Amino acid sequence: MNVLTLNSGSSSVKYQLIRPDKKEVLCSGQVERIGIDGTRIVHKTNDEKIKKELDISNHKGAIDSILEIMTDEEIGALEGLDEIDAIGHRLVHGGDKFAHSVLIDDDVMETLHECKDFAPLHNPPNIKGVEAAEERLPGKPNVGVFDTAFHSTLPPEAYLYAIPYRYYREESIRKYGFHGTSHYYVASRAAQMLDKDIENMNIITCHLGNGASVAAVKNGKSIDTSMGFTPLEGLVMGTRSGDIDPGVIFYIAEEENMSIEEANQFFNKKCGVLGLSEDTNDMRDLEEKALAGEKQYKITMDVYHYRIKKYISAYLGIMNGVDAIVFTGGVGENSDYTREDSLKNMDNLGIVVDKEKNDGLRGKEAIISADESDVDILVIPTNEELVIAQETARILKEK
Amino acid sequence: MNVLTLNSGSSSVKYQLIRPDKKEVLCSGQVERIGIDGTRIVHKTNDEKIKKELDISNHKGAIDSILEIMTDEEIGALEGLDEIDAIGHRLVHGGDKFAHSVLIDDDVMETLHECKDFAPLHNPPNIKGVEAAEERLPGKPNVGVFDTAFHSTLPPEAYLYAIPYRYYREESIRKYGFHGTSHYYVASRAAQMLDKDIENMNIITCHLGNGASVAAVKNGKSIDTSMGFTPLEGLVMGTRSGDIDPGVIFYIAEEENMSIEEANQFFNKKCGVLGLSEDTNDMRDLEEKALAGEKQYKITMDVYHYRIKKYISAYLGIMNGVDAIVFTGGVGENSDYTREDSLKNMDNLGIVVDKEKNDGLRGKEAIISADESDVDILVIPTNEELVIAQETARILKEK
Repeated sequence: MNVLTLNSGSSSVKYQLIRPDKKEVLCSGQVERIGIDGTRIVHKTNDEKIKKELDISNHKGAIDSILEIMTDEEIGALEGLDEIDAIGHRLVHGGDKFAHSVLIDDDVMETLHECKDFAPLHNPPNIKGVEAAEERLPGKPNVGVFDTAFHSTLPPEAYLYAIPYRYYREESIRKYGFHGTSHYYVASRAAQMLDKDIENMNIITCHLGNGASVAAVKNGKSIDTSMGFTPLEGLVMGTRSGDIDPGVIFYIAEEENMSIEEANQFFNKKCGVLGLSEDTNDMRDLEEKALAGEKQYKITMDVYHYRIKKYISAYLGIMNGVDAIVFTGGVGENSDYTREDSLKNMDNLGIVVDKEKNDGLRGKEAIISADESDVDILVIPTNEELVIAQETARILKEK
Repeated sequence: MNVLTLNSGSSSVKYQLIRPDKKEVLCSGQVERIGIDGTRIVHKTNDEKIKKELDISNHKGAIDSILEIMTDEEIGALEGLDEIDAIGHRLVHGGDKFAHSVLIDDDVMETLHECKDFAPLHNPPNIKGVEAAEERLPGKPNVGVFDTAFHSTLPPEAYLYAIPYRYYREESIRKYGFHGTSHYYVASRAAQMLDKDIENMNIITCHLGNGASVAAVKNGKSIDTSMGFTPLEGLVMGTRSGDIDPGVIFYIAEEENMSIEEANQFFNKKCGVLGLSEDTNDMRDLEEKALAGEKQYKITMDVYHYRIKKYISAYLGIMNGVDAIVFTGGVGENSDYTREDSLKNMDNLGIVVDKEKNDGLRGKEAIISADESDVDILVIPTNEELVIAQETARILKEK
């Protein structure tokens, strides 16, 4: 079975063609800068990487380009579109409607439209991706895999905010959490790597990319996570503030005479490490300058790491101890600095990174805890696409 | 030396007359409902408690009433006002101007006025109290003791928010923390009770009242605390939301068409356990109904306790272990339910409450950890007034 996975953002579509049973990627790539100047596709096969300028302006055009390059006579992985058996879509926000992956039909599409308000940045392009796939690959089954689904097991004390309860009862305002597919993948993979039963493990997973979140995974189920109703809550991120005194929001918004929408944009787009460093949200750049001793970058990384440590500690407490801590996402997979600094001075809690194993490790599966560490510390490159393809196959088999 | 301590709120003035060297309270009480119908004074001596209706309308009237009753021929603790040597004021927000207690002069008053914006609810009545004391007790020294001072030792990674750095550099927007006098008192008292040197201890102090905060006290210094730039951050409180996804603030404010100021009021006044229970912020009432199995009250208390546990866990992690956990404040001193539930299922971290020692304990100093608990767990009634009186005496001695 061949599954095309699609991850449709506002100006990009990432794709992979996967054989889920064999965990094999036939080709992958992304269409970038949709609706902006310089739209292009970057396509990877097992042998080569091709970049091509595109003359398209929307998601349908992007899907056309993807299907075209995949069936290209010379470099295509497929002879024809018939060889695509199904499409698996990454969908960001399922609200309280979708606790599991779902075969997309008209009812589902209608509900997806209703969830738009919850994730105004992410859900509308997701929907465009589904619509384009339905139109360009008519009759093929589309499956939706939600970023929120893995966190649907949170207990009420973790998902409720201390606001009038009617907002939960009537409008489903609560913590949902994101990056669920990634947290699920790396938690499962950690148990495999350690040859342990996930049903008897407490695992803390840190997905650290430009967006970032931590999850507490107890017996295979997510019981808390740092992102909330929206992806703005929790860790310090590239341009998002993460946790902040609401009083600071009101103070700055009042002082700067911002509207609510302007304040929303400000705390999503102008804050995080970009705001703290007053320079960039390029984590590699920040790391390099921080390690070179440049003060503003050092303090930025200190705040970034301190928040990760606070969440790891909080989840260690609510799970009554932890067996494994996993780092994934662009920063988690590649930054030995972030991994070491976030876990420093935790030896009394049984958490010790092995400097030699950690130093220089980039993008590879590894166990980086010291021999004397009670807690296993792992680096696991995430693979959301594989989970999406596997979920798609599973849903179709169940049909 | 006799020190009059004053804690001036918007509609109340609490006072004590204290001999700091002897830790002796000569009399105490409060003027309630200033500027509202039914203004009255409740005055306590060692022998009796007197309630009296008052015909006053402002803080000066309140101070007059306090001075009058303290020098009353029959029940007064003093022969005359000359016996008051100094006045110690509880001041809420010192911003970045006051890291220590201070003898109040004209310069200090000017700076206090500048800090008004930081704590619009608390600082203006604090200032009124100082002005009234200066007018009614001319020539007597006034000392200010700040709720933020004990937290002035926070490191940058704990006090910085992930917002553009200029807000810190130019406007001093950062975490300050509150309840400092209380956290300081109970941390110091815990070390005394355990006969240990506070310089070598990690202590987590939980001040749980209608406002509530947790502090991480390492070697006698506060290194993190849950309240922030304002008292809105952190734990779930009586009517304050505490930590919340900023995205929820924007979503609700937008939907309800709130102005920034209305949103500020909403998250300060309509949320917390009041909002969750849809009924009350009376903690005794909530506890009673939760323990009687009423669902909405139970879930409210679950959220309240879960947040306390998360902060205790986070601070346990950042301090690399903890020696003692202290409960204080109205709820912390009196609720066995809150103490037990906030620390349940933490035995793997060396934290075990002794049910027998905890049950029914109200308002008394006690150690409530089980024998097998690595961490000492204490209940200590707070005494901010004593610290204020002692600080006042210390400042005057140094003069």
